[in-house]
Amino acid sequence: MSMRELVVLGTASQAPTRQRNHNGYVLRWDDEVILFDPGEGSQRQLLHTTVTATDLTRICVTHFHGDHCLGLPGTIQRLSLDRVAHPVAVHFPAGGAEYFARLRYATSFYETAELRVEPIEADGQRIALSCGTLEARRLRHPIETYGYRLVEPDGHRMLPEKLAAYGIAGPAVGELIRVGHLDLDGRRVTRDKVSVPRPGQRFAFVMDTGLCDGLYALAEHADLLVIESTFLESEAALAAEVGHLTAAQAARVATESGVRRLVLTHFSQRYPDPRRFHDEARAHFDGELIVAEDLTTVQLPPRRVASAE
Amino acid sequence: MSMRELVVLGTASQAPTRQRNHNGYVLRWDDEVILFDPGEGSQRQLLHTTVTATDLTRICVTHFHGDHCLGLPGTIQRLSLDRVAHPVAVHFPAGGAEYFARLRYATSFYETAELRVEPIEADGQRIALSCGTLEARRLRHPIETYGYRLVEPDGHRMLPEKLAAYGIAGPAVGELIRVGHLDLDGRRVTRDKVSVPRPGQRFAFVMDTGLCDGLYALAEHADLLVIESTFLESEAALAAEVGHLTAAQAARVATESGVRRLVLTHFSQRYPDPRRFHDEARAHFDGELIVAEDLTTVQLPPRRVASAE
Repeated sequence: MSMRELVVLGTASQAPTRQRNHNGYVLRWDDEVILFDPGEGSQRQLLHTTVTATDLTRICVTHFHGDHCLGLPGTIQRLSLDRVAHPVAVHFPAGGAEYFARLRYATSFYETAELRVEPIEADGQRIALSCGTLEARRLRHPIETYGYRLVEPDGHRMLPEKLAAYGIAGPAVGELIRVGHLDLDGRRVTRDKVSVPRPGQRFAFVMDTGLCDGLYALAEHADLLVIESTFLESEAALAAEVGHLTAAQAARVATESGVRRLVLTHFSQRYPDPRRFHDEARAHFDGELIVAEDLTTVQLPPRRVASAE
Repeated sequence: MSMRELVVLGTASQAPTRQRNHNGYVLRWDDEVILFDPGEGSQRQLLHTTVTATDLTRICVTHFHGDHCLGLPGTIQRLSLDRVAHPVAVHFPAGGAEYFARLRYATSFYETAELRVEPIEADGQRIALSCGTLEARRLRHPIETYGYRLVEPDGHRMLPEKLAAYGIAGPAVGELIRVGHLDLDGRRVTRDKVSVPRPGQRFAFVMDTGLCDGLYALAEHADLLVIESTFLESEAALAAEVGHLTAAQAARVATESGVRRLVLTHFSQRYPDPRRFHDEARAHFDGELIVAEDLTTVQLPPRRVASAE
């Protein structure tokens, strides 16, 4: 399997701290390198990782509050400065097109890189990628906000002992996977005879939101869920008022949605001790729990094993 | 004397490095706290200094290339987030007003802070401050660019032994300084009899430019000159082509202009060893020479002593 991992650039919410840069996340997923919500300073944070601006294939912005997109101008200008030769797709809420235009041409620069600007026009919009489907779902926040979900199609895990039993090897394996069957000496071998289902991986990225249907649609059976938990339960009323989640809420959503690996981030500077987010979430979620720190890398967990039928 | 010092936020040019953030400089000068050329990440760099966004009284932008102003949106939004109660003046080349408008309202935010937008309309424009005069001079760069110079008026240094000889003390000293003379028992004592001239301090901020008259006008007799030296002499032809200075050029300007303390900055990432800037400049400048690093503070040198006449 190709490398699939999340590189965390920043984990602060509205105000950065000495330890936490503004938001920013890179998802490496096969031939896609997707930058989510580049906050101010993302360009420089990249220098402390193995990702370069040249690697980026796609940028996804959840909404146009500054902490989620003020790194866009620097990133976009950097694509041209580095003479990135491939087009880079950009997704953002269509209602924020004017903000995007300002950020794209925020200052004078010599534009060479090609952006493919593809705003999200509607809840549930899907974008077909070679490695799966990127889906946007509307979230609950004071301005138009979308979360994103990347879903790999379910596939097949070939069973070597079965293939060997039929004498299938080499290019014939690829043909069997692609076509679904293979005719050998007048006998048809179907894919199902020599494989078991291989569930596709699912990644979800949920930023600023109160509890809502879109949040659950994004999180459903995610192998890796990155989710804001700006607040703790002690500020639950404030969180609801301003359209944010608490660590407990994020953890309960993860449990109810069958999430496997949970990454909490986008922390308010009012809580200096990140262990409080861990402790509060742990009480509501039994899976793998990560309280994100800047410049850490989180692997996608191995694909689920198909349940016996 | 009140505190007068330069706080360096970042020292990179077009591309930041692991060691160097994009540009950004704060000048503390009596009741003024002036942010010059806030590049991306300036808001967070401030957290590593003793300056807060709340302290800022004024922002000066030399030009609208990204490395000199992509920190503006974050800084402006931070003024509102922190509920800064005093107005903050903003100066920038008037020809870049459209860029300023985009940066000011780059994303959705709740605006509470008051900006006093005062673009630089002409070469030599002067802005009267309570602590002196801020002057803008046109520089030589592919887009409209102004350097800034802050000049304290010349004053008087009272001589305690002379004051004592005349029996002048307490509030009378203030009156003498203000009015210029004092009548004591029918005898007039002029200020000049009990003082020597006190030259005002001069600070100059020179960013992206080739050699030009404006550069010399800014640097003239500066006590502290902050100046770009993007390149070394080995790239002098390239520097001239793109409107930049070499370390040797910056040092020669400083010498020819009678600069006392010289701060070189805005270094191209192509030179990993900053000692090369020092060595090259040292050959052309005998005064105090500082190759700027991020998050260092440079004091204004004590005022010059007036030459005997």
